[in-house]
Formats: sequence, structure tokens, C-alpha cells
Amino acid sequence: RAHLGLSLGLGRSVVTQRVGALMDLGLVEEGDARSSSGGRAPRELRFRGEAGLILVGKLGASTLSTGICDLAGTLLAHSSEPADVARGPEPVLAQVQQAWFGHLEAAGAAPERIWGAGLGLPGPIEFATGRPISPPIMPGWDGYPVRDQLADAFRAPVWVDTEVNLEALGEARWGLGRDVRDLVFVKLSTGIGSGVISGGVLHRGAQGAAGDIGHIAVVDDVTAICRCGNTGCLEAVAGGGAIARAATARAGEESSTLLRPMVDAGRVLAAEDVSTAATRGDPLAIELLTQAGRLIGETLSLLVNFYNPGLLVLGGALAQNSDLVLSSLRETVYGRSLPLATRNLVLGRSELGATGGLLGAAAMIVDELLHPARFYDWATAGTPHGKPEIASSS
Amino acid sequence: RAHLGLSLGLGRSVVTQRVGALMDLGLVEEGDARSSSGGRAPRELRFRGEAGLILVGKLGASTLSTGICDLAGTLLAHSSEPADVARGPEPVLAQVQQAWFGHLEAAGAAPERIWGAGLGLPGPIEFATGRPISPPIMPGWDGYPVRDQLADAFRAPVWVDTEVNLEALGEARWGLGRDVRDLVFVKLSTGIGSGVISGGVLHRGAQGAAGDIGHIAVVDDVTAICRCGNTGCLEAVAGGGAIARAATARAGEESSTLLRPMVDAGRVLAAEDVSTAATRGDPLAIELLTQAGRLIGETLSLLVNFYNPGLLVLGGALAQNSDLVLSSLRETVYGRSLPLATRNLVLGRSELGATGGLLGAAAMIVDELLHPARFYDWATAGTPHGKPEIASSS
Repeated sequence: RAHLGLSLGLGRSVVTQRVGALMDLGLVEEGDARSSSGGRAPRELRFRGEAGLILVGKLGASTLSTGICDLAGTLLAHSSEPADVARGPEPVLAQVQQAWFGHLEAAGAAPERIWGAGLGLPGPIEFATGRPISPPIMPGWDGYPVRDQLADAFRAPVWVDTEVNLEALGEARWGLGRDVRDLVFVKLSTGIGSGVISGGVLHRGAQGAAGDIGHIAVVDDVTAICRCGNTGCLEAVAGGGAIARAATARAGEESSTLLRPMVDAGRVLAAEDVSTAATRGDPLAIELLTQAGRLIGETLSLLVNFYNPGLLVLGGALAQNSDLVLSSLRETVYGRSLPLATRNLVLGRSELGATGGLLGAAAMIVDELLHPARFYDWATAGTPHGKPEIASSS
Repeated sequence: RAHLGLSLGLGRSVVTQRVGALMDLGLVEEGDARSSSGGRAPRELRFRGEAGLILVGKLGASTLSTGICDLAGTLLAHSSEPADVARGPEPVLAQVQQAWFGHLEAAGAAPERIWGAGLGLPGPIEFATGRPISPPIMPGWDGYPVRDQLADAFRAPVWVDTEVNLEALGEARWGLGRDVRDLVFVKLSTGIGSGVISGGVLHRGAQGAAGDIGHIAVVDDVTAICRCGNTGCLEAVAGGGAIARAATARAGEESSTLLRPMVDAGRVLAAEDVSTAATRGDPLAIELLTQAGRLIGETLSLLVNFYNPGLLVLGGALAQNSDLVLSSLRETVYGRSLPLATRNLVLGRSELGATGGLLGAAAMIVDELLHPARFYDWATAGTPHGKPEIASSS
């Protein structure tokens, strides 16, 4: 308690009162006595993460990952399964619910122990209402009340956000960004997107569209058609899908030694095939990945100049599998950004990988649940141990 | 008090206690009784802006503006004078001090009534220490302890920031951005820069370099030499200085009807001359301003996609004087940005003009002075009316 008072700049009576309120809520307990440096031995306080459970999930274009966490953000169990976001909200959200109820059952936990739930979706979300807005790869989801539907099913507060935002939040809290206040998480996968953290807080933008860098026009090429409907988008020329298409189209060229036999054998190339071929020295694969890295790097150098992040975290399959994309991108970012903006800029691969989005969902839920305004409601309303009786709100 | 309790979600005793502390500090007083809607007439509380004075200033490349405000941010007096930032920190800061002491004297106020001071400088600043870092147009200022020097002279806390950041803060608090949480203030003048507000808070970036869009490379032209030392920067092709240079160089061309006689008469053209000529129909001037607007618009469309602001505020002489730059820029931003990011995007001229930076400095100082952590220090240390005995800290 003395340590809390010092680090928060609060007086002894305020600390005692607030810690007492947290104990009444079952969120804090007395820990072991620590060795004394003279005088009475100080007592540790412990956050009781086990006081409640939260459900976390993230939906990609073709995969659903779900998990169950405690209030400290510890991932107790998680799993992945195929899911087709294009089937529309009803069947996909039914799948989310089934997966969550499965985790609850496996943990032997009653639904009443759930304090909150959070889901990441692959498109822009209006955070205040938890509805997708004009998501380009989610037919049928525009304006669908995802949040309300899940909140009704679990009788707990639910928050919904863009999936890449949750990955950014996970990196900021538990990954490479633990000690950084301003960072951008860049996801290089079939598509390209980013999540933006300003002063430790997620910057969602006025329409929840912040970080949508995949659809910045980078080339004046009307044949580079993007799944968003425009042409010349970064994603349409440097995303994993674009790399696979270009490799398939050009595999007949002289320069390809490893990709040509694969295409000749009737295989539809994936970005991963191109990464593997590049590692083994295929000239076409090397050319395609280097060029993708350069195009991505040019866009990121603009962001570095404008936003001056302390850290760029690169995640997604393309970043994980290809050293070439990363080195080409890195060279372009450091070469084209302002010296001051790159002076202490760190550019690194995600440490969290596949669980980053789930951990970010946990961070989002816990931040919302333990927000001072909400905590005040609890403390005055005398919420009992277990599931808090609170409505979902932004 | 009842209204405060309702809008802050605080109980009656907490409100009474905190309002009491503010009254003890001389920051709040009882106002007039309001008409009753039944029962005891409610009493208004009034923030006592006059409890203290603050000094504000902003330094451009060739002009120093200074002023004196009360704690409510009301500008009581202000003035402008020529100043050459290239003379280095000692003579220029002596000029700042002289101007501030002049305002104090004119107001008949003792230096003890000053609660704080703030200065905007035309280069990147490390906000925590109040020192310029590698400012391109401020020779001799790199690392100079501007904050400490002024704090010693006035025995009051001082904050120093990039000038365009203060303009952004002014717009956010008292200008077009009053009701907007995410906005970018773009200054189009001799140079080009911007200030970035995320969730109502200034985003300064990891090195205080956020918003430095003037030095984004926009053309592959090695003859477009920028004052930063690079080539092809936005500022070097679309800033006021670049427009004036291009107009002077090309005034001999057939297409110029109004600029040619001016150059023939030996005049060195300024950007303002080009704006005036365009208004009167000079084809060269129209071409140059339209092209500048398009180049600026292309860069801003990238920011709109990445940052998704609700508002772009355009300030600076070039924005104020030329409708052409603005319309060309506007067309490019709406044409090239993502539909979702521009759905509710407002793009407008600054309402505050020349006093925006001073008002932003006032907002910065008041925010820092009345920050909860600092307020707690005051409330517990029992700071008397008048100048608070507090050290300058970030």
C-alpha cells in the first residue's frame, strides 16, 4: 500500500479506502508478507485475476480463433477452426457462440462467471455500437448488431473491434510494445492492414477506419484490381494474394526455376510457396518478394514521417515467413523516412503470433471492465463477487 | 453541484469535497443564485479564470507573437514583432522575455501572478525536456534548454512545443475542432507542417516529430531541393516558398499575363503575389496553385486513409489567401481517399487565424497546470491563492 501511494502520488487514507473497495469486489487480496527492510514487514497485495472469466475471439477471412482468459489476461485455453466470414453474420456468430460455450464447458465454468466478451472482425467497426461499417470482405455484415447479439446470448458486456486493432493492442500490452507509447502494428497477410496506438491508447479514428493502409493507392495500374473494388491499392500489388497471383501468372518465365514446375504440375500457388521458393533461391520469387517489401516500405515510410511511432511491429503470415520482405521493407523505411523519425525507431516481428489478437481482445475487455467510471459504479452499487451486474456500454 | 455530480457520475460528498478544495485554491467561487424550478434555488459555480495569469508565445521563422491570458484561456492582450529565429537562442529568447515582461507591465501585474508560460517553436521539440531536436531552420538551437532558461527567468513552470502542435491544440479547443475528437491541423505557409490530435489529446510521436508532413518525398525530382537538405519533399514543390520560386523562374513564359510585368520590373515574387495574380486570372499563377493543391491533397489523402480524422483544418497564409489551392486540394482528398474515411470528413479553413497558436499555448499550459496529478499536489500541500509554488515538470 505504501508503494502504491508513492507511485500514484496518493495519500495513505485514499489508498486504504480504494484497496478496501477492490477487496470488497473480490478483485484484490492480501498476499504474503515480504522480507522487511526494518520495521513492520510490508504485505504484498495481489490482483485476483481468477475473480472472473472473459471470452475472447478473432475472426479472419477463413479462420475463427477463440479462447477463455482470466481477468489478468492469462489465456487459459484457446482453439482455432475454419470459418467462412462470407457466409454472413448469423451462421458465423452461431459458430462463435458454440466455440465459446465449448470453452466454458471444458473449463467447467457456469456462464454466470463470464464478466465480459470481445471479438475481433476483419473489417472496420463502429466501436461505440459494435457494428461493422461497410466491411469490404464481409458480405451481409454491414450494420449488423454483432455486439448486441452476443451480449444477449451471454448476458455479459461485449465489445467488438477490428481484428488488427486487437492485434495491435495485444502487442502493445504483452508483446514488443510493452514499453512503447506510440506504435503501429502492421499485418502482412493475404490482405494488409494496421492498428495504431497513440500514447498507449488505441487510435480508432472518426469512423473506426484508422490503420486501413491496404487500400492506399500506391501504383497507377488499372490492372491491379483490389478486392475493395479500386485499383492500384497497396494490398492489390503487395499483399499475399497479389504475390501468389503474380507468381502464378509469371511462373512460365525463364527466371523461375522452382515455381515453374509447381505451376506446370497444375498447382495454384500460395504466398507461402513463393516464400519457400525464395528461400531456396528462385529468382522470380526473390524478385516478387523484394518488390512487395519495397512497396510496403514506401507506404510505411509515409506513416513514420506523419506519425513518428517508436515501434513498427510486423505480423501476419507474410512477415513471419519471409525474411526477404522484411529486409527489403526495412531498407526502404530507414532510407526514405526523416532521420529524426527513424533515430530511435524499432522495426521488429511480432512476438505473439497467432495468439496476439486473442490477448488484445483480453486487454480491450479488461480495460473496459476496470475503467475508472465503471469501477465507481461497482464500488457505489456494491456489486457482489462473481459476475458484475452491468450493462454493456462504450 | 448537483449538475456536476450527475454529469461526472460522482456522489454528493465527493463533489462537495472537491469543489471545496477548488474554492480553497481560489479557482472556483459561488456565483449567482439561479431561478428555481421548485425547491431551493440552485447556485451556480464559477471558474475563476482571473485567479492567475499565463504568458503565451509562438515563434515563426521571421515573426514572434506573444500574449497574456487568464486561466480560462482568454487572451487579454497580444502583439507581434519581427524576429529572426536564425540568430540563435540567446538573442531570440531575450526578445521573448522582453515581450512577456512588456505584457506584464502593461497589465499592471507583478511577475508573481504568473502561473505558467508556454512557447511554440518552428521545429521538433522533445516535450518532456522542452528542448529542440535537430530543428532544420533553427541554427544553434539543437538541444538548447529553452524551457529551463525561461522557467528560471519567470520563476514559473514553462512548456515548449512545436508551433504547429499549438495551433492544432488551439483549433481543437476553441476553433473548428471544438466537437471533434480526431483531427489534423495542416499549416500551409512558406513551409508545410501539421499537428495531430487523437481522442482530444495531442499526438506528439516518439521523438516529437509527428505531423512533419512537409518532408515526405512526393516527387522524384533532384532539382526540387528542400531547406531540410533532401530533394523532392512536399514543401519543396508545394510550399509557399516553392510556389514563389517557380513563379519567378517561369514568369517569362507566354502563359503569364500579370506576373511577367512584376518580374520584369525587378520584383522578387512572394506566394501572396501568385495568389493575387490567380484571383485576377493569370494562367501561370492558376496552374502553379492548382498543382500545389493537388500535390498537398495527395499527401493528405494518405493521412486520411491511415488516420481517419473527423476533420482537417487548413491554416497558414497559403490556405487563407488562395481558394484555388483549397479547392484543388479538397477535390484530390475526396477523390483519392477511401469512401469510409471521407464519409463524414470535414475539410475547412482555420477559424482562429493568427491567434490560434497563442490560444493553443494557453490550452497546453492550463491542461498541464490543472492536470489531476498536479491538482492533487496543490490540494494536499495547501497552495495559497496567487502563484502556485510548483516546479516545472512534464
